[in-house]
Amino acid sequence: MANPVQEFNDVFPVLADELIAHLRSIHIPENAIEWFDRSMRHNVLGGKMNRGLTVAETLRILKRGEELSKEEIFKANLLGWCIEWLQAFFLVSDDIMDNSKTRRGQPCWYRVGGVGMVAINDAFILESAIYFFLKKHFKKDAYYVELIELFHETTYQTELGQLLDLITAPEDDIDLTRFSIEKHAFIVRYKTAYYSFYLPVALAMHMAGVKDEAAFKQAEDILLPLGEYFQVQDDYLDCYGKPEVIGKIGTDIEDNKCSWLINQALDKATPEQVKVLHENYGRRDEANVIAVKEIYNEIGVEGLFKAYEEESYTRLNALIAKLDHPLLSQDVFTSFMKRIYKRTK
Amino acid sequence: MANPVQEFNDVFPVLADELIAHLRSIHIPENAIEWFDRSMRHNVLGGKMNRGLTVAETLRILKRGEELSKEEIFKANLLGWCIEWLQAFFLVSDDIMDNSKTRRGQPCWYRVGGVGMVAINDAFILESAIYFFLKKHFKKDAYYVELIELFHETTYQTELGQLLDLITAPEDDIDLTRFSIEKHAFIVRYKTAYYSFYLPVALAMHMAGVKDEAAFKQAEDILLPLGEYFQVQDDYLDCYGKPEVIGKIGTDIEDNKCSWLINQALDKATPEQVKVLHENYGRRDEANVIAVKEIYNEIGVEGLFKAYEEESYTRLNALIAKLDHPLLSQDVFTSFMKRIYKRTK
Ligand SMILES: [Mg+2]
Ligand SMILES: [Mg+2]
Ligand SMILES: [Mg+2]
Ligand SMILES: [Mg+2]
Ligand SMILES: [Mg+2]
Ligand SMILES: [Mg+2]
Repeated sequence: MANPVQEFNDVFPVLADELIAHLRSIHIPENAIEWFDRSMRHNVLGGKMNRGLTVAETLRILKRGEELSKEEIFKANLLGWCIEWLQAFFLVSDDIMDNSKTRRGQPCWYRVGGVGMVAINDAFILESAIYFFLKKHFKKDAYYVELIELFHETTYQTELGQLLDLITAPEDDIDLTRFSIEKHAFIVRYKTAYYSFYLPVALAMHMAGVKDEAAFKQAEDILLPLGEYFQVQDDYLDCYGKPEVIGKIGTDIEDNKCSWLINQALDKATPEQVKVLHENYGRRDEANVIAVKEIYNEIGVEGLFKAYEEESYTRLNALIAKLDHPLLSQDVFTSFMKRIYKRTK
Repeated sequence: MANPVQEFNDVFPVLADELIAHLRSIHIPENAIEWFDRSMRHNVLGGKMNRGLTVAETLRILKRGEELSKEEIFKANLLGWCIEWLQAFFLVSDDIMDNSKTRRGQPCWYRVGGVGMVAINDAFILESAIYFFLKKHFKKDAYYVELIELFHETTYQTELGQLLDLITAPEDDIDLTRFSIEKHAFIVRYKTAYYSFYLPVALAMHMAGVKDEAAFKQAEDILLPLGEYFQVQDDYLDCYGKPEVIGKIGTDIEDNKCSWLINQALDKATPEQVKVLHENYGRRDEANVIAVKEIYNEIGVEGLFKAYEEESYTRLNALIAKLDHPLLSQDVFTSFMKRIYKRTK
């Protein structure tokens, strides 16, 4: 049996060629094709591809060991790549909105020489590719409309999470009174959990022939809290993870991020501690960061996280154990859980 | 009979309420709803609404006098509003990419206080609204998938036209050797004609029950050149129109636009004239603009336009006269033609 990562990677050049062949067929000038190709490779490739790989992996579990046909493997991986294209659309624009410098060890696309704000239109084009692929490969499938609607809805959800994130925690206008545990939960679910956790599984479910809305609802009811737990870990590791393990030095405090940690701290802090947080959060100076971390220590935010992690583990496992839809398999969710419980990177 | 403009305008508040009600139902915090609402009103409203109005107008012609039901009027106008939402998505981002200052007599959205680059995500949200409306109101219609695909494809076409425009004529890197009559034609068709001319008619055709692809092809074969003619007029009026009539002072020469005029001039110019154009096009100084206009006069670009206008009129009318598809009416196209032939604004 071929390696799933290899199978996944083999699909990218096929998809890239399809897009380029279409551009040639409508006689778009060659300089635009070169630009298109460069944007696609810079922005779609180079990530961890976890989301993309999950579609075929989930389909295998849902088919309970039945061997997938070559076509099924190709189509599942194609849907996985559609998530990677969707993510590229989000990341190109997120980096502009966050004024970021690097992404995946390279300059952000809009910072590449000569690109600038053209990157906005490049992001749009990345999104359009999804529907080009879906039409080309799924138009005859009974679940074609469901795939389209799922991508639309997930895109909209992510945009709404991004909106709330952007207006709650703008880098240049620090105001912690806008933060709250409820807003944090909304942002995390909408901005991350839908497209990273629910989308790949729901795509695989469509391919497996699942039609019952109750099955999708059961999957969502586990995957959204799972995604929330994952993002809370991300927030925790940004402050308490080992830089040499997580591969970067966290800057959520400097960046005025509406992180789980600051929301927990604000919730538990005395008026004096709140004052210190207000005076120091979202500022670039090392002294400010140290002052915030001192309050985190006083409040015991690390301990709150450990308790949250245990509570999440128990709660999510209970949700998984209760899962009884005949078309779903608990293994889909336990495999996620195993990968993320107590992760250090 | 109610006034078509009034009927069209009456639909906007219904659609705005549907979006807001949905946001309330998912418990997005109130500050995000306010932002969403402000962005929508600023960006969707305030235009001439020609594209939006064309859907119901075309449907009336296609139904050959048969009175439209209240539901048909509502749905045709809803599709018209979807074009206006699509255009809002394009314009918000185009203004950022062009570093523009005003739009429809107001500051561009990204220049409104506190907005900035959040406008990119606001543009995405404007696009997502289209598919929210289509699902809500057309899911049960036989042509639902066709509507979705048409919006996807038109969006992609517009983005490809925008890409070519952006890399052919960047404001900060003037190089007229990138220009050509062929590129101009591609940009105009893709960036403007598909969404402004073909889309509203094709939407009405779907509502009228047209299924035959040949009918859509015939419509496209007239509407794309018609849109091209319209844009060439736009380029002409930018330089030779009366500012008090067109409502603005043209700046295509200063803005390094890949306009029909400069492409005609470059095509006909002597090497000496080409040199003057290269030295003066895309620059902000009045002396530079005057130098370019002098070359235009020497070459007789105005006369070339008049000849193009007559030739287009004859050619397009011949295309319309040949139109023989039983489901199409020549009136759809002659009504466009009447509105734009020899227009001065
Ligand atoms: Mg970011
Ligand atoms: Mg961000
Ligand atoms: Mg993080
Ligand atoms: Mg512009
Ligand atoms: Mg532009
Ligand atoms: Mg113009």
